[in-house]
Amino acid sequence: MLNNYGIDIWSDENFIIEDGLAKVNHKCKPSLISLVRQIREQDFKGPLLLRFPHITKKQISTLYDTFNNSISEYNYKGNFNAVFPLKVNQLPNFVHPLIKNGEEFNYGLEAGSKAELVIAMTYNNSNSPITVNGFKDKEMIHLAFIAKSKGHDITVIIEGLNELETIIQVQSETNLPCPNIGLRVRLHSGGSGLWAKSGGINSKFGLSSTEIIEAYELLEENKMLEFLTMIHFHIGSDMNSIKPLKKALRESGHIYAELKNLGATSLNNINIGGGLAVEYSSYERTRFYSLREFASDVIFTLKDIAKQKGVDEPNIFTESGRFISAGSTVLITPVLELFSSEYDLKHLNLKENNPPLIAELNALYTDMIKRTAYEYMHDAMDHMESLLTLFDLGYIDLQDRSNAEILTHQIIKKAIALLEVEDYEDLKKLDENIQEKYLLNFSMFQSLPDYWGIDQEFPVMPLTHLDKKPTRSASLWDITCDSDGELPFNSQRPLYLHDVNLEKEDYFLGFFNVGAYQDTLGMKHNLFSQPTEVNVVFKENEVKLEKIIESQKIIDILDDIDYDTRDIKDRLKENLDTNTYQILKKYLNENSYLKTTWS
Amino acid sequence: MLNNYGIDIWSDENFIIEDGLAKVNHKCKPSLISLVRQIREQDFKGPLLLRFPHITKKQISTLYDTFNNSISEYNYKGNFNAVFPLKVNQLPNFVHPLIKNGEEFNYGLEAGSKAELVIAMTYNNSNSPITVNGFKDKEMIHLAFIAKSKGHDITVIIEGLNELETIIQVQSETNLPCPNIGLRVRLHSGGSGLWAKSGGINSKFGLSSTEIIEAYELLEENKMLEFLTMIHFHIGSDMNSIKPLKKALRESGHIYAELKNLGATSLNNINIGGGLAVEYSSYERTRFYSLREFASDVIFTLKDIAKQKGVDEPNIFTESGRFISAGSTVLITPVLELFSSEYDLKHLNLKENNPPLIAELNALYTDMIKRTAYEYMHDAMDHMESLLTLFDLGYIDLQDRSNAEILTHQIIKKAIALLEVEDYEDLKKLDENIQEKYLLNFSMFQSLPDYWGIDQEFPVMPLTHLDKKPTRSASLWDITCDSDGELPFNSQRPLYLHDVNLEKEDYFLGFFNVGAYQDTLGMKHNLFSQPTEVNVVFKENEVKLEKIIESQKIIDILDDIDYDTRDIKDRLKENLDTNTYQILKKYLNENSYLKTTWS
Repeated sequence: MLNNYGIDIWSDENFIIEDGLAKVNHKCKPSLISLVRQIREQDFKGPLLLRFPHITKKQISTLYDTFNNSISEYNYKGNFNAVFPLKVNQLPNFVHPLIKNGEEFNYGLEAGSKAELVIAMTYNNSNSPITVNGFKDKEMIHLAFIAKSKGHDITVIIEGLNELETIIQVQSETNLPCPNIGLRVRLHSGGSGLWAKSGGINSKFGLSSTEIIEAYELLEENKMLEFLTMIHFHIGSDMNSIKPLKKALRESGHIYAELKNLGATSLNNINIGGGLAVEYSSYERTRFYSLREFASDVIFTLKDIAKQKGVDEPNIFTESGRFISAGSTVLITPVLELFSSEYDLKHLNLKENNPPLIAELNALYTDMIKRTAYEYMHDAMDHMESLLTLFDLGYIDLQDRSNAEILTHQIIKKAIALLEVEDYEDLKKLDENIQEKYLLNFSMFQSLPDYWGIDQEFPVMPLTHLDKKPTRSASLWDITCDSDGELPFNSQRPLYLHDVNLEKEDYFLGFFNVGAYQDTLGMKHNLFSQPTEVNVVFKENEVKLEKIIESQKIIDILDDIDYDTRDIKDRLKENLDTNTYQILKKYLNENSYLKTTWS
Repeated sequence: MLNNYGIDIWSDENFIIEDGLAKVNHKCKPSLISLVRQIREQDFKGPLLLRFPHITKKQISTLYDTFNNSISEYNYKGNFNAVFPLKVNQLPNFVHPLIKNGEEFNYGLEAGSKAELVIAMTYNNSNSPITVNGFKDKEMIHLAFIAKSKGHDITVIIEGLNELETIIQVQSETNLPCPNIGLRVRLHSGGSGLWAKSGGINSKFGLSSTEIIEAYELLEENKMLEFLTMIHFHIGSDMNSIKPLKKALRESGHIYAELKNLGATSLNNINIGGGLAVEYSSYERTRFYSLREFASDVIFTLKDIAKQKGVDEPNIFTESGRFISAGSTVLITPVLELFSSEYDLKHLNLKENNPPLIAELNALYTDMIKRTAYEYMHDAMDHMESLLTLFDLGYIDLQDRSNAEILTHQIIKKAIALLEVEDYEDLKKLDENIQEKYLLNFSMFQSLPDYWGIDQEFPVMPLTHLDKKPTRSASLWDITCDSDGELPFNSQRPLYLHDVNLEKEDYFLGFFNVGAYQDTLGMKHNLFSQPTEVNVVFKENEVKLEKIIESQKIIDILDDIDYDTRDIKDRLKENLDTNTYQILKKYLNENSYLKTTWS
C-alpha cells in the first residue's frame, strides 16, 4: 500500500518524510506538525494556511537560472524577463515576499484588472516590468499612463483594436507619457484544430492577422510605432505537454518577424504567457517536460525564426503564475472525527424469531470460509437490498434493518480479511464499501475551489504517523452542508489514512500545492471564510511565524456581507441574562470553523 | 429562430415580453430597461443585481397554499411548516424582506453553520421555527441552547451520535433550556443503488438504522426522549423527477413510525429537506412534476404509512431554498463591445502575385453558387488550414495570412446566405464559425459561479429589441483574464442576439433565476466583486428602488484582502503631480468593473 503519499512525485523536494513526520526540506527542517502546534498554542484554531516564501524564491531563481543558462548555451542575443500574474494570488502575505524575493532578478507583475493594476503600480520593484492584460476601458488605460508617469516600465497589451484607439485618444488628451504597447495575437495553433475553443480562431482573446495589420497601420498613422514593443500570446493554463507551445512559438515568432520587417523597429519582446505546469498528482507523473526542455525549446525556436527572417532575436517574457506560487502554500486541516461504517457486532440484537433473510445473513456470516467468501458476500449484498425494500413496505422493523446492516458489513469485513493476501485488485473494490469517513475542519468551497469546479486533484498527506502503515480507505468530508463537499474514496487512486483515536491524539491532513488560485477563488459557502494564514520564514537556523492573519470572526463575516452588526448585538442581548450574553459575545468573536474554543 | 428566449418555459410568469421589452409582470409592469436606466442615472455603473421581493413572497405563498390545499383535500391531520436554508442566500438585502414576507405563514430559517445560526437567532420571526443542520461542535450546540432560551422554536438536527452526546453534555453543564432534537436519517433510497454516493449508505450525512436505535436508547437513558421531535432527510438539490422522493418518503415514514411505536411520544415532525427544482432551461422543460403533485405525494405517502403502522400523521417540514429564492434575482450585464469575426472585404489586400492557395480561395469566393456552396466552403476551410501551416513555416507573409482569413470567412458567409432557406440544421453548425462575441461587463466567476463549477445553465435574454429578430449567433465573454469566463455558442442550444451599434445605443443582457447560491458562491477572480445590488419594491402603482448597495470600490477591495490602504495611497502619491493624483484617487473610489466613470 501507498505509504509516501507520492511525495517523490509532487513535492519537488520541498517536503520530505523523516521519523514518521512530514517536514519542510529547508535549513533546520522543521516538521509541519511542530509549526502547527506553535500556531495553535497561540490560540489560533481551525484550518491553517502555511505559506513558505523560501519556496517562491526558489521557483523564481530556478526560472531565471534555467532560461539564462539556455540563453548562454545557444548564444542567444535576447534577454529573459518574467512577471507574476497577480490573478493567481493577490493576497499581501503572498505578494509582499514575492516582490522582495524577485528584486534581484527584476521580476515584475502582471495585472488583469484595475484593482490588480493598482497593486502593481503601488508595489512593483522600480526596475521591474509591469504588463497589463485583459479587457480595458479608458480609465484602465489612463491608469497605465499614470503608472508610466510614476516611472514604471509598463506595457499595455491590447486585446482589440478599440483598446488601441483608446490609447491613441488618451495620448492626445493628456500630457502623460505613453506606456509601451503590446499586441496579443490570436493563434490558430493553440487548440487542437482550426476552430477549437482554446487558443483557436474563435478564442476569447487576441487579434487576428487582419487586425494586427490594422493595428500596425493605426500606430503608423499616429506616429506611435515607437511604442509597439511586444507580441503576446498565451495558450492556456497548466499545459501537460510542450508540443502546442512549440507550434505557438513558430506562429507568433513569424508574426514578430513580419512586423519587424514591416517597420516595427521598437518591437523587441515576445511574451509567451504562462502555462508552465505543476505536478499535482500523487500517483504518477502527468507533466511530461522539464523546465530546461521548455526553455531550450523557446530559445531554439525563436533563434531559428529570427535567423530565417533576418531579424534580431527577441527578448523573452514569461507570465507563469502557477509554477511560481502553487508549491509555496500548504493547507492544514484538523481531522474532527472518524465516522466509522464498521457496524460493531455488539449492537447486533437478533430476535428469537428473525425474518428469514436475516436468519440467512447470520448463517452466511457464521459459515463463511475463504473458498466461499466471494459468493457469500455477494449473496449478503443482495439480501441487504431485499431487506431494505421490505422495510420500506413495512414488513420488517427498525431492529431488523439495523441487524441487516450490521451483518452485511461484518460479512464484507470478514471476506476482506479472508481474501486479503492474494487478491489485491478485488480487495480495492471492496474498500469502497468499508471506507472510513474523515471529517475535516475546513470548507472545500473556500479552500479547494478548483476541486469543486474543475476536478483539480491536490496532493494530500497526514502530517504524522508516516512511519506506520495506513490501513483505512478514506473518504474526506468538509464541514459545509453540501454533499459536494466531499473527496470520495476512489479505488483507482486510493487514499489510505491511519486509524487514530482522536480523543487521545490530534491528526492533521495537509493539502499541498494550493498556492495558485485557491485563495482568490475561495467561496463563502455557509459563510466559511479564509483560514488563518501564517508566513513561515527561515532565519539562519530558526523558524519564525510572521504576519499571522486570523480567519475572520463571525461578527466580521456578517459585517462583511453588509449586516448591521450593532443591530445584531442589540437584538441578541434581548431576553438573555448578562452571563449568557457574554458567552454569546465570545462566540461572535471567534472564527467560524469548529472547535475554536473548546479544544 | 428563437425569439422569446424561452420565457414561457423558465419565467413562471414573473417576466413578460411586451412592446419589444422585457417587463416585470407585476402591478404597473415596469420594463427592466427602465429600472436599469433609473439606477444608472444615479451614477451606479457596471453590472447590476436586481432583487424582486414580491417574487419571493409569491413563492412562499404558493408553497404554503399548495401544501395546505393538499392537507385539506386528503383530510390530513398534520400541519405544514417550512424554513429557508440560509446557505442559499445569506445577504441582508435578500434575507430581511424574506423574513418580513414570511411572517404571516410563520416561515422560518435553517442554519448550517455558526454564522448562519447567528443570523437566524437574531432575525427569525418569533413564532417561526429554526432548524440547525450540518456538523456541529459544542459551541454551536451551546448557541442553539442560547437561541432556545431567547424563546426560539429551535430544532437541532444531529448528523452523528457524538452530537447527541454533546447535547446531553451541554444540557447537564448549563441551566439553559434544551432545544428540540431531530435525527437526520441516512437513506438507502436516495441514490441509484445500495452503495450510491448521494443519499446512499456511504453518503456524507445522517445516521444508519443502528445509530438511530442507539440515539433512541441514549435519549431514553438520559430521560430526554421528550426533546426528540423530528426526523430529517434530504435527497439532494434541484431534483428533476419526483420518484426518488417517493421512495425516500416511504423509508423515512417507516423510520418515523417505528420510533413512535418504540416510545418516542414527542416525535411528530418529518422534515423532508429541500430539492424542489427550478426551471433553468430556455429550450425545453427539465422539471417533470408540479408543486401540487409534489405536495400530494408527500401527504398521501405519509398518511398511508401512518395508517399502516397506527401512528399519528406527522407534521411536515420543508427546507426548499432554490424554489423560494432563485426567481427573485436578475443579473443585468451591459454589453461593452461586439467583437465581429466577419472580416470585412475592405481589408482584403491581394497582391499582384498571390500564393497559389490564396488565388484559389479568391476563385472559390467569386465562383461559388448555390449548388457548389458546400463543396467550395469545405475546400476553403482545408485551404485555410494549409495556409496557416505555410505561415508557421515562413512560406507566406502576414498580408497573405490576413487575406486568407478574410476570404475564408467571406466564403463561409456567402455559403450561409446561399443555403439559408432550405437547410436549417446544417446552417446551425456553420453558425459556430461566424459567431459574434459579445463582451459583457461582469465576471462569470463572481456572478454565475455555478456555470463555471457545475455547468448550470441560466436563462439569458436581452432587455430590449425583443420585437426584432435576433440574427447573430452569440458567444458571451466576461471581462476576467480567464478563458473559462465564456459562455460559448452552442449549436444544440443556440443563442441569437441582435446586431446593435453600441456607439448609438446601449444593449443589456439579463441572466434570470440567479437568486439561489450565486451570491454566496461568488469568487473574487481578478478581484472583481459583487455587482451593485438593488431591491425593487412595488408600492401601489409605483416602483421604488430601495437599499442600493454599490459594488465595492477598488480601494475597499484591497482593504478587504488585507492591504494597508494608507500605505497604498502614500506610495501612489510619489512622483505624481497633485492633479494626476486626484484623478487616480477618483479611480480608487470607483468600483472595479469597466466604464464606471466615462459612459
